[in-house]
Amino acid sequence: MQVSIDALDGAFAAVVKQKINQKTKPPGSLGRLESLALQAALVQNTLSPSIDNPQVVVFAGDHGAAVAGVSAYPQDVTWQMVMNFLTGGAAINVFARQSGLGLSVVDAGVAHEFGAAPGLIGAKVAHGTRNYLEAPAMSACERDTALARGRSLAHGLAGDGCRALVFGEMGIGNTASASLLTHCLTDLPLDPLIGRGTGLDDAGLARKRALLGQALARGGRPSDPLDALAQYGGFEIAMMAGAMLGAAERRMLLLIDGFIVTAALLVAHAIDPRILPYCVFSHCSAEGGHCLQLAQLGVEPLLHLDLRLGEGTGAALAFPLLRAAVGFLNDMASFASAGVSDKG
Amino acid sequence: MQVSIDALDGAFAAVVKQKINQKTKPPGSLGRLESLALQAALVQNTLSPSIDNPQVVVFAGDHGAAVAGVSAYPQDVTWQMVMNFLTGGAAINVFARQSGLGLSVVDAGVAHEFGAAPGLIGAKVAHGTRNYLEAPAMSACERDTALARGRSLAHGLAGDGCRALVFGEMGIGNTASASLLTHCLTDLPLDPLIGRGTGLDDAGLARKRALLGQALARGGRPSDPLDALAQYGGFEIAMMAGAMLGAAERRMLLLIDGFIVTAALLVAHAIDPRILPYCVFSHCSAEGGHCLQLAQLGVEPLLHLDLRLGEGTGAALAFPLLRAAVGFLNDMASFASAGVSDKG
Repeated sequence: MQVSIDALDGAFAAVVKQKINQKTKPPGSLGRLESLALQAALVQNTLSPSIDNPQVVVFAGDHGAAVAGVSAYPQDVTWQMVMNFLTGGAAINVFARQSGLGLSVVDAGVAHEFGAAPGLIGAKVAHGTRNYLEAPAMSACERDTALARGRSLAHGLAGDGCRALVFGEMGIGNTASASLLTHCLTDLPLDPLIGRGTGLDDAGLARKRALLGQALARGGRPSDPLDALAQYGGFEIAMMAGAMLGAAERRMLLLIDGFIVTAALLVAHAIDPRILPYCVFSHCSAEGGHCLQLAQLGVEPLLHLDLRLGEGTGAALAFPLLRAAVGFLNDMASFASAGVSDKG
Repeated sequence: MQVSIDALDGAFAAVVKQKINQKTKPPGSLGRLESLALQAALVQNTLSPSIDNPQVVVFAGDHGAAVAGVSAYPQDVTWQMVMNFLTGGAAINVFARQSGLGLSVVDAGVAHEFGAAPGLIGAKVAHGTRNYLEAPAMSACERDTALARGRSLAHGLAGDGCRALVFGEMGIGNTASASLLTHCLTDLPLDPLIGRGTGLDDAGLARKRALLGQALARGGRPSDPLDALAQYGGFEIAMMAGAMLGAAERRMLLLIDGFIVTAALLVAHAIDPRILPYCVFSHCSAEGGHCLQLAQLGVEPLLHLDLRLGEGTGAALAFPLLRAAVGFLNDMASFASAGVSDKG
């Protein structure tokens, strides 16, 4: 996959900071929002960034390993939740509506036939991945198809004027996949990367640990992102990684959600590290591995709310902060325009 | 001041939690938002709380001690910023517009004549407080007037259908007043409660410390909230404290902002501790004393964004989280209604 992401123009930062410091507030007093405003300006290379037409895209896929018992919920919940997204009843629907975010759901590889439905983007690679306890989760061809479809989807959204993309996911078993991918692509040991996901009890957690150990014994620990994806990935994770790369190519702002979305970003980042300054790290989830991933990337998330739902909910909840950052940069008065005395 | 705040019905919590746990998400997976939803339901004593007609009220007042040099900015900035609020150019204007919050500015005691202006509520007690380095900041009569006007203002907003109130403030010198009040009403030593406010340099901070030490030497450390207010308060702080008590009397949700707003809450809390469960603690500010205040109250703020602007900006930024909490409780589908399988 040939990716072409621009490096940001660091020299422009001084100009942006000057604009920020003329706003009617003590210098630095908007804290993290000032960094966010700077980031948005650098990503768009303008003093007046916009986050027009922001979109949530929820990538859904099934995992062959789910039948082995890595999750507290049955695999059918993946397609049932896709239907819930399409009828507007899930948490991400509520938060997207409140924040003025459009919402699409991508069938990246759910083990169910949906037919055509408004709001559903059909991009199914297969009816779920293979069980990585027995064989690689996907073929090289399936993986490349998922990456390419994600990239093309992001390019399409950019063409429609979307400047900020919230990444969400749904897939029973996908915290397990995210744990394995993170272990492959970082120097982190597997154990602290394995969590309770949707809510495993102690016995379930022990079973998950044992199963993921078996998976590693079969498939090894490939450090190449494409090899790791093929061994342990989900179609929703691969398609997200492709969409992230495509979004950064089009200089969109990427709102990164929780543990699984960040695993997809680790894949994208291993393919092209220039993606990092395009990312807004929305929150640190209650799934323990997530803060370890963020520390590996050397980034600080905006919110700490003990969320562990996925779907893009944490990123949708952080979106108003990005809007506020862009809003103050564009719409606040300056000391001169408002006739307010500056510091004595 | 006779205050009548209802204690909340703790027994109702189990009923609310049952509703929350039927939503299509793993139990507990919305973290802090679940606690917020529970709080809103308990405050309004309903399974379907609403935050209709939410309002920001920015209380403005001047401090006699400002002329002694406790702030990095000249006193005129208070009235200039009030004008900035009224013309829509301040940070709080931007954030309130984005979050769908109404905004009013209260002249509680600014040293300036504004005349009538749309959006300005004239409630001036005097042209600024007296300099507490020389005499008590306000008389008992002035203090009681400020408290009563605040309470009556909150009752009026409740009558207009407002269910959630964001508290903000403006007043050059008011971090100094907040430090003294917090010292009086808690067991915290003065020193860690004194910060850089709008941005004092090291010399300015040293001067502020010396001046507040002199103030204490003159006025003592009254632990009674009314006595402390009279010695060191600001009219905006006294009026906020009254408004907080009045808002809790009408079972509104109170969004608490930073260091100065929390100092007002410490006053209100000392008058009637039943106010506490009505409060949403929006953020922990970069003014060091704020986290000490929050720890004294035994509460955890929602956001940690290194904000130190005041005006209610932190509370306005947290407001979408409250809206999201109420939204998921009211609008999400249940497992039964969405046909989603519950945990296996």
